[in-house]
Amino acid sequence: MITANFNYRELPETYLFVNIARRVEEFKKNNPNRPLIRMGIGDVVLPLAPSVARAFSQAALDMATPEGFRGYGPEQGYLELRQAIAEFDYQKQGVSVDAAEIFVSDGSKCDVGHIQELFSLGIQVGIPDPVYPVYRDSNIMAGRKKNIVLLPSHKKNGMVPLPPDQPLDLIYLCSPNNPTGAVFTRQQLEDWVAYALKNKALILFDAAYAAFIQDRELPISIFEISQARQCAIEFRSFSKSAGFTGVRCAFTVVPKELEISDGQGGSMRLWEMWNRRQSTLFNGVSWPVQQAALAVYSSEGQKETLEQVKIYQRNAEKLADFFKSRGFEVFGGRNAPYVWVDLGRDSWEAFDYFLNEAGIVVTPGSGFGDQGQGFIRLSAFQTPQKVDEAIEILRKLLKS
Amino acid sequence: MITANFNYRELPETYLFVNIARRVEEFKKNNPNRPLIRMGIGDVVLPLAPSVARAFSQAALDMATPEGFRGYGPEQGYLELRQAIAEFDYQKQGVSVDAAEIFVSDGSKCDVGHIQELFSLGIQVGIPDPVYPVYRDSNIMAGRKKNIVLLPSHKKNGMVPLPPDQPLDLIYLCSPNNPTGAVFTRQQLEDWVAYALKNKALILFDAAYAAFIQDRELPISIFEISQARQCAIEFRSFSKSAGFTGVRCAFTVVPKELEISDGQGGSMRLWEMWNRRQSTLFNGVSWPVQQAALAVYSSEGQKETLEQVKIYQRNAEKLADFFKSRGFEVFGGRNAPYVWVDLGRDSWEAFDYFLNEAGIVVTPGSGFGDQGQGFIRLSAFQTPQKVDEAIEILRKLLKS
Repeated sequence: MITANFNYRELPETYLFVNIARRVEEFKKNNPNRPLIRMGIGDVVLPLAPSVARAFSQAALDMATPEGFRGYGPEQGYLELRQAIAEFDYQKQGVSVDAAEIFVSDGSKCDVGHIQELFSLGIQVGIPDPVYPVYRDSNIMAGRKKNIVLLPSHKKNGMVPLPPDQPLDLIYLCSPNNPTGAVFTRQQLEDWVAYALKNKALILFDAAYAAFIQDRELPISIFEISQARQCAIEFRSFSKSAGFTGVRCAFTVVPKELEISDGQGGSMRLWEMWNRRQSTLFNGVSWPVQQAALAVYSSEGQKETLEQVKIYQRNAEKLADFFKSRGFEVFGGRNAPYVWVDLGRDSWEAFDYFLNEAGIVVTPGSGFGDQGQGFIRLSAFQTPQKVDEAIEILRKLLKS
Repeated sequence: MITANFNYRELPETYLFVNIARRVEEFKKNNPNRPLIRMGIGDVVLPLAPSVARAFSQAALDMATPEGFRGYGPEQGYLELRQAIAEFDYQKQGVSVDAAEIFVSDGSKCDVGHIQELFSLGIQVGIPDPVYPVYRDSNIMAGRKKNIVLLPSHKKNGMVPLPPDQPLDLIYLCSPNNPTGAVFTRQQLEDWVAYALKNKALILFDAAYAAFIQDRELPISIFEISQARQCAIEFRSFSKSAGFTGVRCAFTVVPKELEISDGQGGSMRLWEMWNRRQSTLFNGVSWPVQQAALAVYSSEGQKETLEQVKIYQRNAEKLADFFKSRGFEVFGGRNAPYVWVDLGRDSWEAFDYFLNEAGIVVTPGSGFGDQGQGFIRLSAFQTPQKVDEAIEILRKLLKS
């Protein structure tokens, strides 16, 4: 008799955004004529950069020609794209990462969810609170619910988790942070790397929002920190840097020399393990999609995508400034596409208030974890017009 | 201290096709001027159907417009595509499958590899021998090496595995079979469904090569078999039916009512579990790729892709007929893109012989499992010209 993976029973019943969607649907049914401004889910809205779409489109057409057709590609991604990533995102920033250390995939969500397969079931896992739910849920599915240690993001530590006193084995960090919009300082990341080296722990560094960092003082990649190559894997994505949420392309960096214990007195190289995992359970990214990603690194692509990021950055700043002007404590909004506002009231109550009184969809902070209670998250992934409209509405609603 | 998933140590050292590639590279180095005909790996070579490439390309361009842009799509796939699949691949064939039961993905390799996550670690797993390595390797990675029971494909059962005497919990079946090219008869599949119902087992039915079935008597989908909806999940792909190996699109069918034990006296619905798994660890297929897949179902798309399948079918028949004419026992080659030839000699020795004497790359049968020893697999995914060339070379080499 076949039996199910019982760990699925340990998952939270409904996914946060499904719950939000249900409430929004109900609102629309009851208020068919009221406009709605969506700043809940972190999904981009600006069209794909023209030069990127052209490369994407041309590659798709080329597939219909004998010369341009491509069948199975390398599971790790085409070398041309991996080289562009290594050069533009790392080497030009003075960070040593080789093309062979880059694994192209169809999304950071997949990579960050699958990576836990490389580790033994008994490890202790540090998960931030509040958190992007995939870190937690993927570990619960694998049977590690009782091994999860929450790492709180408090006001007093700038809304990022700091190294705990106890030794943990695997630590998920996200910077710029989802949902708090906070960014690790260089010192904080150095502390994390020192912690990992001391405890022989591994850091999973989710840098999906790296493109939003403007302050030159803040680290973009964890590999800017000395010795991070001995204790970290990094996740990056084209989703937010180039509007690829519907195109699907991301990458993961696994340093070649990164080794961990095999639990039996030997060690195993994570690059080899991830390579085996991806070769066995993945078949590479669509070739035209990789051509689109490659076009992001052309001079035109860089110019066009940077313009889009700037629009979102300006949105985030405007939203943050507005809430500050109304006397609320605000995190994020600079170097990040998220604005994290302490409303000092129940998050879901605040969610309902914004929806019903302003027609604005936000995300309740408590949906990301207990430490998010009292906060809401606003996403800057909107058109500037909608953001201005939202602020106009809120200006009347929230007296200063 | 973090420790690695030690199960990775239990995996076969090198992946079959990596080993082949190494020997081919060596041959090319030693024989720089000799032509090479590749009939090893099962990768399509004909260009994408023009109407499919046009839809793909247009959707990519549309992404650069405010009206045509798409961000995150449903993790399960866009409804339009799911409906087309349900209608064309099932309902029009008289098979009851609903659009909601279809999960669109970026490849059957991913789905067939990930599906084992839904089951408890202690289950007994039936894996065919010879076999597509992903079924085995995904279970080894998860820690089920000692739970694997091999299901031999013998000449006397027509080169497909038949139900064993012992009860197993999870059974991987592939029809048309990779690597043997054999196809289950209706009676054989009925026997498997009866076995699964009796033992409360689950069948994972890999029908990636379904498009190659010509004989109307042979079942294309396992859901043609009565009560299969209570005991089976089906995997289908656009890779071989429409030349999508480099485009990346496939789908998995999970019947809504399919329930298995939770091992604690209750039951769990696999549709809900797979939906949760995909929503959490996957972010949907690229929108232009889904538009390309949708175009496969247009009348033009159907006509063009069917023509390509016919070319490969004709290749397979020619290869099978040739080896038969030379007195070898041959399986597959009809209703399948693979030709499985009993050469009566060591598979790797035969591989080297074909490579060195004929400049033809085949796959050694033993690479798919012990029962493949003595066989080679030829892939019909070539141009007709190359297949004719190969037969001409072999005609001189293998005297009748």
